[in-house]
Amino acid sequence: MDNKVGYQGEVGAFSELAAHHFRPDQTGKLVPIPTFEELFERLSDDTLDEIVIPIENTLYGSVHANYDLLLEHNAHIVQEMKLRVRHNLLVLPGTTYEDIKVVSSHPQALGQCRAFLTARLPHAEIVPSYDTAGSAKKLAAEMAVGHAAIASRAAAKEYNLEVLAEGIESNHENYTRFLLLRPGSAKLDEAKGATFRTSIVYAMQQNIPGALFKSLAVFALRELDLLKIESRPLIGSPFEYVFYLDFKGRLDEVAVGRALDHLEEMAAYVKLLGSYPAGPVVN
Amino acid sequence: MDNKVGYQGEVGAFSELAAHHFRPDQTGKLVPIPTFEELFERLSDDTLDEIVIPIENTLYGSVHANYDLLLEHNAHIVQEMKLRVRHNLLVLPGTTYEDIKVVSSHPQALGQCRAFLTARLPHAEIVPSYDTAGSAKKLAAEMAVGHAAIASRAAAKEYNLEVLAEGIESNHENYTRFLLLRPGSAKLDEAKGATFRTSIVYAMQQNIPGALFKSLAVFALRELDLLKIESRPLIGSPFEYVFYLDFKGRLDEVAVGRALDHLEEMAAYVKLLGSYPAGPVVN
Repeated sequence: MDNKVGYQGEVGAFSELAAHHFRPDQTGKLVPIPTFEELFERLSDDTLDEIVIPIENTLYGSVHANYDLLLEHNAHIVQEMKLRVRHNLLVLPGTTYEDIKVVSSHPQALGQCRAFLTARLPHAEIVPSYDTAGSAKKLAAEMAVGHAAIASRAAAKEYNLEVLAEGIESNHENYTRFLLLRPGSAKLDEAKGATFRTSIVYAMQQNIPGALFKSLAVFALRELDLLKIESRPLIGSPFEYVFYLDFKGRLDEVAVGRALDHLEEMAAYVKLLGSYPAGPVVN
Repeated sequence: MDNKVGYQGEVGAFSELAAHHFRPDQTGKLVPIPTFEELFERLSDDTLDEIVIPIENTLYGSVHANYDLLLEHNAHIVQEMKLRVRHNLLVLPGTTYEDIKVVSSHPQALGQCRAFLTARLPHAEIVPSYDTAGSAKKLAAEMAVGHAAIASRAAAKEYNLEVLAEGIESNHENYTRFLLLRPGSAKLDEAKGATFRTSIVYAMQQNIPGALFKSLAVFALRELDLLKIESRPLIGSPFEYVFYLDFKGRLDEVAVGRALDHLEEMAAYVKLLGSYPAGPVVN
């Protein structure tokens, strides 16, 4: 299959790494796209076959912007994976700690590596940048002697930089869950996997007392295990919420179909985001 | 009461704005602190009396880092508020659109104002910075002619900058929920309010089937309305979750006490974060 797979960010971004893991055969056909909005548009107008998006991170939570785009666009999830986010100190080959005067990266990455930077590079100037891979690209392009970037190993390889220190983030429990999407409504395709996960977004009808509890009963009474639940308040409508729900089960199981039918009875809307094999954790 | 109230960020940050709203009498005694970790430490060692933290945002979700700090430290919530995040284009007085060559702000703010920047300042260089108020402070300190910053109205006032354009963010449903914390375990103090909200964090014991559903039953069966529910997976322990839960009710109500006792029966741990009056929405 000759697939054009898009991801957001620069070459060497964590999203590109996830795309490589999802589609190891398509290396070289991965397409970097500047924004998530454009990524979804390119899927809708058929100029991309598949796209990779981050959906939640263990430290920073759900990426609401991508949930919003999933609601707006006609796309569905076909695979998932959890990727460990490891930050590294990248420099031009031959650079030593003593040489480093400036360290650049995305503010989130700089924040995650604050303890390391304070201990090892207390006098370096810290310069925020748009993204981790972008800071590596810029450093390489400008042959910036005395500069360092914080980014992935993949970025080091892409831009021929040296990894001076590895895994410099303070909290190693930093994983991002990525999704691989295809255009069209969610359906079960040829995907194989021992355990399936189904993702939905829904809102309850107003004036149903204990609405959230009732909506979860639909799954609990059919012994479908919940894997993720999150309420997102709608500002301006103080008693309205959107719920993100993932549960264990395949779309073609009787219990899953019945649970979704049951949910429709009391929901204002339900959107099926996908039914796909539970993905690996990539360290 | 002579209160030292701390917040994270520069003067003019949205957290400072929230602190002003929480404690209008303490203006001038608000203390800017560089990091959230330090903020909690200063509360623990009594060099601050109260601190203000963001806990969730309508576009970016829960601030897990602050939930983690709430779990680690002996502090409790005494008030909450939802503050509208409005971004503005700030310049040195007299600057026009034609003069602007560089626009600086936090990458999140730059992203939220992308449509405006593309339409009105297509040729300006976009420079990321650590925070919104910091970009305004730097612009003012350097008297940077031809530069603009994206930040709050409060930052404009603080640094004597002109607001060239107001509310330039694409999505106006941008609200951050802030909490006011005091040291010590959660208790009901003299707080008054028509509606109370109680916040807890808990984890269920392993091997309880339908654990999440059962934990919510504890509240639903006592007709305590849920206001927020979020599961946070513990990476490395694929079937363990931490739950953030807010429900309507005061700690001194019989039903609330019984619900919490009932939850303790099946939880691995429960931490009460606070019981406080439901806060205002500040536009």
